[in-house]
Amino acid sequence: MDADAYLAESASLVDRFLDARLPAPAEPPAALHGAMRHLLFPGGKRLRPALAFAACEAAGAPREAALPIAAAVELIHTYSLVHDDLPCMDDDAERRGRPTVHVAFGEAVAVLAGDALQAEAFAILGEAAEADGGPLVLRDLAASVGSRGLVGGQADDLAFEAGHGDVDALESIHRRKTAALIRAAVTGGARLGRADGPRAAALARFGERVGLAFQIADDLLDRDAGEPSSYVALCGADAARRRAEALLDEALTEIEDWGERAEPLRELARFAVRRNR
Amino acid sequence: MDADAYLAESASLVDRFLDARLPAPAEPPAALHGAMRHLLFPGGKRLRPALAFAACEAAGAPREAALPIAAAVELIHTYSLVHDDLPCMDDDAERRGRPTVHVAFGEAVAVLAGDALQAEAFAILGEAAEADGGPLVLRDLAASVGSRGLVGGQADDLAFEAGHGDVDALESIHRRKTAALIRAAVTGGARLGRADGPRAAALARFGERVGLAFQIADDLLDRDAGEPSSYVALCGADAARRRAEALLDEALTEIEDWGERAEPLRELARFAVRRNR
Repeated sequence: MDADAYLAESASLVDRFLDARLPAPAEPPAALHGAMRHLLFPGGKRLRPALAFAACEAAGAPREAALPIAAAVELIHTYSLVHDDLPCMDDDAERRGRPTVHVAFGEAVAVLAGDALQAEAFAILGEAAEADGGPLVLRDLAASVGSRGLVGGQADDLAFEAGHGDVDALESIHRRKTAALIRAAVTGGARLGRADGPRAAALARFGERVGLAFQIADDLLDRDAGEPSSYVALCGADAARRRAEALLDEALTEIEDWGERAEPLRELARFAVRRNR
Repeated sequence: MDADAYLAESASLVDRFLDARLPAPAEPPAALHGAMRHLLFPGGKRLRPALAFAACEAAGAPREAALPIAAAVELIHTYSLVHDDLPCMDDDAERRGRPTVHVAFGEAVAVLAGDALQAEAFAILGEAAEADGGPLVLRDLAASVGSRGLVGGQADDLAFEAGHGDVDALESIHRRKTAALIRAAVTGGARLGRADGPRAAALARFGERVGLAFQIADDLLDRDAGEPSSYVALCGADAARRRAEALLDEALTEIEDWGERAEPLRELARFAVRRNR
């Protein structure tokens, strides 16, 4: 199965779960519940859930076992975008061709919708906490999204100034802002699929590298946007392409003898790094 | 032991735990880590942690068993205040006699600090998820703080207009915005103290009533502030005082035959409702 087909199946699986799980848009407070769904449906590529499913299958379990972490990482990703778009942060009026949440629902509701999406992610993992590996998956996700992970990377990203940061500082931001959540998706999927410690550790390294390379690929696609915290802006497009390919190579080496079961994971890694959208 | 002494001991216990647990203020990103601590230290009365400890003791366990939920509810309470104070919400420049987080650190960092405090609350409960009752405590907290709890109450509170809401709508807001977290503190403390189902259920009713009465007491203290979503503004001070006493009575009835072990919990309930600060 190629990456596009796997992504489509994953999106359908996680979307059904999330749609059934979140309060209906008409349930009061309707503005809040509408705002929580605004960026979530229709969403993006659902790459993070797909990686969680593929890691679960690579561990030898059916992909459904990874649903809690697949849903949780997509909710965390969505909440972080809602807050990133706020006027006091990146001040973006559009995302994925539609008005951002604060433009559509007002700033206060956008802050609250992001807060509630984060709470929902942990509610879902809390329900999986009695499953094998559940507590560990929850701890990993919480660590990945706190001030030493996603939120810390975002704070440093806001402070990163063109011409004042070096590659190490940039990669530290990308490691926390982008790679930590992707790593948590992959290791979480594997653990809910009952991967043992060494396999989960290999997938943590795999996820970290795919996450970093994914961010570089994003920077290459966004080349004209002129973000200061862009690998392309700092090192040029050729060096960025070489770095992304080297990271992909290291990632694939971690799972090279895992056989056919890991093929969706490999396909998704190649897609994440080489995609043109 | 009277309520003041119990509150002081509880504050010392939870503060030591939180101080050791949170990243040091100098750890990068220093603005983020400083902002996370700004409203937390020195904090308020630490009533929620004290209720968690007292419920744990009422269940017959040493109060230390309740540390994870005591810390988590205080972090959630603090994050919600940081976000409530934002210019797009209540736009408050001062709290507890000091500049609010967004005044001291800027709006973007205040949003992120709130986000990270919420993540830290779940990280702490995630580490307790392997303890007896841990997964249940985590699920209860997550449900209490999401769009059907704390965040939903806050959304409705923002939309509540003077002269357009009735007492039922107001109490629904207070039930979610204030009482849900207090109920989660009490039931969480009890469960980590290995209370059985019926005791936890009695404490859920106790916590709900104390939480509602606590909010009315707050409204009575704030009488001049003129919040539309105030029980005092809607019903007058006399009716508010009677309602708070009736709720306290109902709460105390739930635990009346629990003996000496539940005395700190009773003292705290009386303090929450009758305090003059």
